Amino acid sequence: MQQSQLPADFTARLGEMLGERFSTSISLRKHHGRDESIFAPTLPDAVAFPHETAEVVEIVQLCSAFNVPLIPYGAGSSLEGHTLAVNGGLTLNLMQMDGVVGINAEDQTASVQPGVTREALNAVLRDTGLFFPVDPGADASIGGMCSTRASGTNAVRYGTMRENVVNLKVVMANGDVVHTGRRARKSAAGYDLTRLFVGAEGTLGVIVEATVRLHPLPESTTAAVCAFPDINAAVQSVVQIIQLGVPIARCEFIDPVAIQALNLYSKTGLSEQPHLFFEFHGSESGLKEQIALVQEITQDFGAAHFVWSSSPEERSRLWAARHNVYFAALQLRPGARSIVTDVCVPISRLADCVNETLDDLRQFGMVAPVVGHVGDGNFHVQMLIDGDDTTEIHRAEEVNARLVARALAMDGTCTGEHGIGLHKQGFLIDELGEASVNVMRQLKKSLDPRNIMNPGKIFSL
Amino acid sequence: MQQSQLPADFTARLGEMLGERFSTSISLRKHHGRDESIFAPTLPDAVAFPHETAEVVEIVQLCSAFNVPLIPYGAGSSLEGHTLAVNGGLTLNLMQMDGVVGINAEDQTASVQPGVTREALNAVLRDTGLFFPVDPGADASIGGMCSTRASGTNAVRYGTMRENVVNLKVVMANGDVVHTGRRARKSAAGYDLTRLFVGAEGTLGVIVEATVRLHPLPESTTAAVCAFPDINAAVQSVVQIIQLGVPIARCEFIDPVAIQALNLYSKTGLSEQPHLFFEFHGSESGLKEQIALVQEITQDFGAAHFVWSSSPEERSRLWAARHNVYFAALQLRPGARSIVTDVCVPISRLADCVNETLDDLRQFGMVAPVVGHVGDGNFHVQMLIDGDDTTEIHRAEEVNARLVARALAMDGTCTGEHGIGLHKQGFLIDELGEASVNVMRQLKKSLDPRNIMNPGKIFSL
Repeated sequence: MQQSQLPADFTARLGEMLGERFSTSISLRKHHGRDESIFAPTLPDAVAFPHETAEVVEIVQLCSAFNVPLIPYGAGSSLEGHTLAVNGGLTLNLMQMDGVVGINAEDQTASVQPGVTREALNAVLRDTGLFFPVDPGADASIGGMCSTRASGTNAVRYGTMRENVVNLKVVMANGDVVHTGRRARKSAAGYDLTRLFVGAEGTLGVIVEATVRLHPLPESTTAAVCAFPDINAAVQSVVQIIQLGVPIARCEFIDPVAIQALNLYSKTGLSEQPHLFFEFHGSESGLKEQIALVQEITQDFGAAHFVWSSSPEERSRLWAARHNVYFAALQLRPGARSIVTDVCVPISRLADCVNETLDDLRQFGMVAPVVGHVGDGNFHVQMLIDGDDTTEIHRAEEVNARLVARALAMDGTCTGEHGIGLHKQGFLIDELGEASVNVMRQLKKSLDPRNIMNPGKIFSL
Repeated sequence: MQQSQLPADFTARLGEMLGERFSTSISLRKHHGRDESIFAPTLPDAVAFPHETAEVVEIVQLCSAFNVPLIPYGAGSSLEGHTLAVNGGLTLNLMQMDGVVGINAEDQTASVQPGVTREALNAVLRDTGLFFPVDPGADASIGGMCSTRASGTNAVRYGTMRENVVNLKVVMANGDVVHTGRRARKSAAGYDLTRLFVGAEGTLGVIVEATVRLHPLPESTTAAVCAFPDINAAVQSVVQIIQLGVPIARCEFIDPVAIQALNLYSKTGLSEQPHLFFEFHGSESGLKEQIALVQEITQDFGAAHFVWSSSPEERSRLWAARHNVYFAALQLRPGARSIVTDVCVPISRLADCVNETLDDLRQFGMVAPVVGHVGDGNFHVQMLIDGDDTTEIHRAEEVNARLVARALAMDGTCTGEHGIGLHKQGFLIDELGEASVNVMRQLKKSLDPRNIMNPGKIFSL
């Protein structure tokens, strides 16, 4: 087990400032040194739990003075090794900075500390007639969601964190506290620093407050599930729905293997065929129109077994089932770990990409449910492997590499929403080229010259 | 008149490369050295008209080697002094790079060279059922619109350039050609370089290709005009419409002074009251719903004189009139110049901000029509002044400074869509603080260490 390697002065000063909110206990370090990725645990030397921006500033200044890596940490639900302490250092667990700073219902904005989770925010919003739509499945923290440019099931209608962050307060590597914007709906004032930090994976600064956009709760909501004779029919339906500009709120693809897992885990009783899960938001008459169009299109592609749910309880049950696919799938192979892919392609290439990938999975003999936010062209293959079997790991990585190459050849991206982290640094170069990644490296060096902010993530320097 | 100051070797090599597309003629330099802003003309030493990326790369490398400032130039419609050659140098007129590289109707994207104007792009799209919505009024170039993060009348529904650029190809100061993205609808792959260049005003690189999002032409479109008893009623209507989430496509405020100008210039025959101009996009029944809601809300606020136009010709006439406000207003005071303000505030403060500003205009005795993209909280005061009278200029600048301070106190921005340029550098610091502007300076220095890319814009180094 790694020994904590921090300078004694550094440790002493943090202990003085934070008391019990600073710890080098092995159990805390272990908890913060592993994640859902396939990487071996790499422990930080200590963990700190700040309560306010002033503490974060002081911690950052200390890390800078003592050259100690600093890893911002939220709900710990990232999938690509973002929070692993690859160079040791201090993990900054921001989950105790969980205050809602302000809600402005008239302007449809909320300002929160980074440790507020999306579910906690929506609970606070319950009586305002507004909601925060971005939903990556896990009850992630808003700070973490900013940092990975998260999206999820209803990005097709409401956008990702890119579109839904209005302003950030960020502690820079030099201890400066920076505001990236104001609360106006748009601005042309200088470089778009908000978007620079959204998706920076904690490598450029620590987000200590985020102002996000809220959206009016729809007047009516209906969910629907339908089954297709084959995968192509399901995907082609989605392509046509998107091209017609139907403003669907959610549109999720679930393949037969994932349906099987859902039926076992959530007792959903669905036929083991490719499915689409839809959600529609709008006025009564708007919904009717959307639903009529979607029914027409999907039925043209042979959809059947329509199940409609307009009651909140039924809908919750349905989307809980969808969100449980990850855990449900793990039951298909008890004891297995997952390697989850995350490509996103232009919608016109989605059917080809899914089909070729399924051929590949068969060829490589993978147990791998496929689900996807197909309205965005984004889908996930959850490869279930024996985490102790390097042959299996390598095979899964090969399937992933082939999938990324396929997506890139279709002008897509290696990651629609999970981020680069440790795992996809080579793919990032394949995707954008050395020159683009060099621009990122230059930006990083200019804002974090000592490389203390989550070092080793996104790219090597 | 300034003499061209370029090194002879530099001039010789550019002449060799570009032939007649490189010029030091005084008339061309004059044409590129003035704009719609209040600043005195400042001429570049020469103008170049590249035709392809390879030429831009070579020009950038030459500018870098000879330390010659480089000013990217599009349609020349910017308002804040963006294209003035404050340090001399070479103006890079990109309007001859006007090719449409590709349109992908299925994925609703178009890739264009920077000199394609928005009207030219929409002309090419005519038979695809798609359109490019961002509309700043002027027939600006797509490259320029990227660089100022332009928006305009229908940003309230379709977003600004921030939301509508998918990928950029950029020539960096070191001559590297960088791609910022792929064609997928979303991506979490590394820093958001696309959003870094959108709004960078040519200070970080030269955009040589842009891939933008297209939108399906609405099934039905209706425009409407109505008059209000007072300004407050007009603005409060908009606030309520936005808060209810009505998906209006356009929502423009026009004050009585601007109406007077329009009536004179465009023979619109409107009553000299505050007006709102609306446009609705949607399905037949969707439109009905939107219109019913908007009518109900506006009538609650005393709106009258509704004029509806669903024929394309009538709508074109209406929006042409709206777009002509700027030139129409100049007729209110023949020989006058304009100083146009551009604040944007959270919607809940819009009525206060407009009202207090109108009080100020009266107090300062300004002839100043007010128009605005009020659905976004953005409005413009066009102060008509004698450009040779420094007292008038100073008074207008004082009104602008007071307006910006008012907007900032309301958590708004000094510029909703025109950008910082030369004019608003002090306001940018007021808005975001020195620490934030320092981050921008660091980014600039890291990507353009010799400061050749449109130097002196956004901030001083």
